[in-house]
Amino acid sequence: MKTGFYTGRFQPFHLGHLSAIKQALSVVDFLYIGIGSAQYSHEELHPFTADERIEMITQVLKENGIKKDTEIIPIPDIHDNTAWPGHVQNLVPPFDIVFVGDDGIVKELFEKHTDIPVKIVKKEVDICATDIRSMMIKGGDWKKYLPISVANYLERIDGIDRIS
Amino acid sequence: MKTGFYTGRFQPFHLGHLSAIKQALSVVDFLYIGIGSAQYSHEELHPFTADERIEMITQVLKENGIKKDTEIIPIPDIHDNTAWPGHVQNLVPPFDIVFVGDDGIVKELFEKHTDIPVKIVKKEVDICATDIRSMMIKGGDWKKYLPISVANYLERIDGIDRIS
Amino acid sequence: MKTGFYTGRFQPFHLGHLSAIKQALSVVDFLYIGIGSAQYSHEELHPFTADERIEMITQVLKENGIKKDTEIIPIPDIHDNTAWPGHVQNLVPPFDIVFVGDDGIVKELFEKHTDIPVKIVKKEVDICATDIRSMMIKGGDWKKYLPISVANYLERIDGIDRIS
Amino acid sequence: MKTGFYTGRFQPFHLGHLSAIKQALSVVDFLYIGIGSAQYSHEELHPFTADERIEMITQVLKENGIKKDTEIIPIPDIHDNTAWPGHVQNLVPPFDIVFVGDDGIVKELFEKHTDIPVKIVKKEVDICATDIRSMMIKGGDWKKYLPISVANYLERIDGIDRIS
Amino acid sequence: MKTGFYTGRFQPFHLGHLSAIKQALSVVDFLYIGIGSAQYSHEELHPFTADERIEMITQVLKENGIKKDTEIIPIPDIHDNTAWPGHVQNLVPPFDIVFVGDDGIVKELFEKHTDIPVKIVKKEVDICATDIRSMMIKGGDWKKYLPISVANYLERIDGIDRIS
Amino acid sequence: MKTGFYTGRFQPFHLGHLSAIKQALSVVDFLYIGIGSAQYSHEELHPFTADERIEMITQVLKENGIKKDTEIIPIPDIHDNTAWPGHVQNLVPPFDIVFVGDDGIVKELFEKHTDIPVKIVKKEVDICATDIRSMMIKGGDWKKYLPISVANYLERIDGIDRIS
Repeated sequence: MKTGFYTGRFQPFHLGHLSAIKQALSVVDFLYIGIGSAQYSHEELHPFTADERIEMITQVLKENGIKKDTEIIPIPDIHDNTAWPGHVQNLVPPFDIVFVGDDGIVKELFEKHTDIPVKIVKKEVDICATDIRSMMIKGGDWKKYLPISVANYLERIDGIDRIS
Repeated sequence: MKTGFYTGRFQPFHLGHLSAIKQALSVVDFLYIGIGSAQYSHEELHPFTADERIEMITQVLKENGIKKDTEIIPIPDIHDNTAWPGHVQNLVPPFDIVFVGDDGIVKELFEKHTDIPVKIVKKEVDICATDIRSMMIKGGDWKKYLPISVANYLERIDGIDRIS
Repeated sequence: MKTGFYTGRFQPFHLGHLSAIKQALSVVDFLYIGIGSAQYSHEELHPFTADERIEMITQVLKENGIKKDTEIIPIPDIHDNTAWPGHVQNLVPPFDIVFVGDDGIVKELFEKHTDIPVKIVKKEVDICATDIRSMMIKGGDWKKYLPISVANYLERIDGIDRIS
Repeated sequence: MKTGFYTGRFQPFHLGHLSAIKQALSVVDFLYIGIGSAQYSHEELHPFTADERIEMITQVLKENGIKKDTEIIPIPDIHDNTAWPGHVQNLVPPFDIVFVGDDGIVKELFEKHTDIPVKIVKKEVDICATDIRSMMIKGGDWKKYLPISVANYLERIDGIDRIS
Repeated sequence: MKTGFYTGRFQPFHLGHLSAIKQALSVVDFLYIGIGSAQYSHEELHPFTADERIEMITQVLKENGIKKDTEIIPIPDIHDNTAWPGHVQNLVPPFDIVFVGDDGIVKELFEKHTDIPVKIVKKEVDICATDIRSMMIKGGDWKKYLPISVANYLERIDGIDRIS
Repeated sequence: MKTGFYTGRFQPFHLGHLSAIKQALSVVDFLYIGIGSAQYSHEELHPFTADERIEMITQVLKENGIKKDTEIIPIPDIHDNTAWPGHVQNLVPPFDIVFVGDDGIVKELFEKHTDIPVKIVKKEVDICATDIRSMMIKGGDWKKYLPISVANYLERIDGIDRIS
């Protein structure tokens, strides 16, 4: 069985994340989804708790029939970036590929500190969570970038209040 | 859907843990299994990494056909016990019952700091991980207290070396 | 004896804080005053040490004859918000009411994670510490928002230098 | 006004601690009492929370009519001993003398890292908290070494259960 | 032998730092160079790892024939400023003078918490690392403010990518 | 230039450590010496501060004429063992070989988490620091296992008092 790892902060989880997960699952049989900066919440850059992020992602994965092919693992920050790939490997069972959304720090650190191949997934949805949070504060149409169940979840927990 | 929470350090995961999980799943539909002291490994009291503990537990749950009814979540120690139930609630989605193996600190802290009911599961297997680690060092018949797949896993990763 | 808890970062302690404490003491017999983000100092958002904040508050409480009805307790940040009410309860003796200045995160977290009632005190002085620090840098009339003894204390320790 | 500092873990607070505080208050007008290892509780060496320790000490100080001459300040461990005197000075307002029970590490660190004079108080009660905890487990007459109100407090919160 | 201490974040090491070190070595025989905020890297304000900073500084010191008169010691942040001079003294052997580039927080903290004299070195090169990082992003002539070997080193490790 | 890495806690630095360093320097041109568990001191297992350990090692290296071929780097524990090799690489410039005294955890972690070859040095002196500390407490002839200058240094700083 081929396994992969994909991580994000998911503040909140959006259609770009879902696309990345689907692409990853077309390459591997099983995907570990790491919830980054897990300990933080109720802050401008980190509005939602790890538990809330697990909830929103779980629901979307179920709706897409792929929950059984994934495991969601919270990963607290340790603020020591070169140690981070080892920290991930402490919490996540062995994986064969790392999937990343762009040519950024996750790719750089895994390539420098492990032998695990890193693959960039195609950007099918042009959005980032920072912009979504900004739209949530300013009143833009943020819902169209989220899976419907995430948008509903955020409504239900007064997610906009959490951010602004 | 009724959900529960059960936590242990699982150093290593033994038949008593499995019995507790089965009892919990006779009460709730879905169980979050918290891996305590997640960050520690390669120490006398904490020989196995969180990732190794996830691996051993996952295999046992699969063999018992109950993997789909559970989610395994690593929970790092924060060394602030009265804050611990809130720390758990940061990492684990909402649950209706806490299951514990005895009348110990997990029960005391959840009862003092949350409204969530705590239920003691029946001790069907009289063993604790400390005794198993001790047998692993001294050469006792530790395997009979473990699910076979865990015993095999520990053989494969030279688990005895890790402990002694 | 009825006891309460009121917390702030007090960077610096101003007339709004004093008003809140007086209102709290009209409801409870004894008030624990938590100094939040206790470990930080000499930073833009956290100019004063916990010890300096204890000093400025103690003097004001004495001048108002209410020192004997209060205990000041430094509370370091743990950067795990859902665990924070339990962290407070680790450091502060039991209290019957939480007093807050607004409908913000302290209220949300205590209501979600404890049974202790939370009461919003009336805003009798329209000022926040952020604005005071801003006036201290830019040269506004910041002293009028502070108890006189705090203004004098900040002069004495060159508080403006600490901020800019 | 002359001020002093006295610190201990107070697990639990015993007659030797009370004697030290009284001796200190015969030298200074006001005493800051630091509760060391504040974050720990529910552990063999650290059974009681900071809040419980504040409660037991407060009651004794009140009974002895000296509460108004003291302020109790929890001091979390930072596990960096040479930095510890500065850490104390971050949390505790300025003091003129440090009082210690023996020629140990508190004395060594304050003498090496500050100019504040350190004074050893006379040992009028020959007991240490480690022995008291040991008696609580084994059934010795531990109560005779504690102020009566602390003994009662420990009975009330099932303190023996916490330790054993 | 007279020894000194000089610390900076060195993000990156520039000609102003080198000038300060040379001035310090005209006063003392041996200089401990502390790499501040050692654990951070790959962040906007902290682009380079401690190991990269050690490399760039070592090369410059060798070129200037002064490596043998210095020792470079990484100093992680502990986010407790009044404890910081003691933290430095935990990691760095005894020194007779502290050298600083300006009348800032290092001077204030060492003067408040130690007896070690603090000396401000003359600002012979008017540049700060913040401006250099800004020029690296915006395309200014940042190289002229760096020792040539540092500029080359940053080219070699794609330092501009790290920052932007 | 070929570089190596050798780490220990050096509580205290003994002839076995010196032998290992000499063997390492017969293989590489330059050796980084990592001082493990750097933040701890004044504890039973960690009596000496990082700064004291740097001092004792520096003197021995000078006496042996090999100081110029080494750099001593304190490495604080992060209590996350799988992340530790990356943590080391954050603080220590690149090295080609890791030298270890035995087939223990340093070897295991570097082999699992990096590509850097690990070499066991020959045990020419049969002693470990734990035994030396034990002899220092009980009165054995501990000095014969230490470089003379370390024995003298420990006498000078009352090292026996620190341990017992």
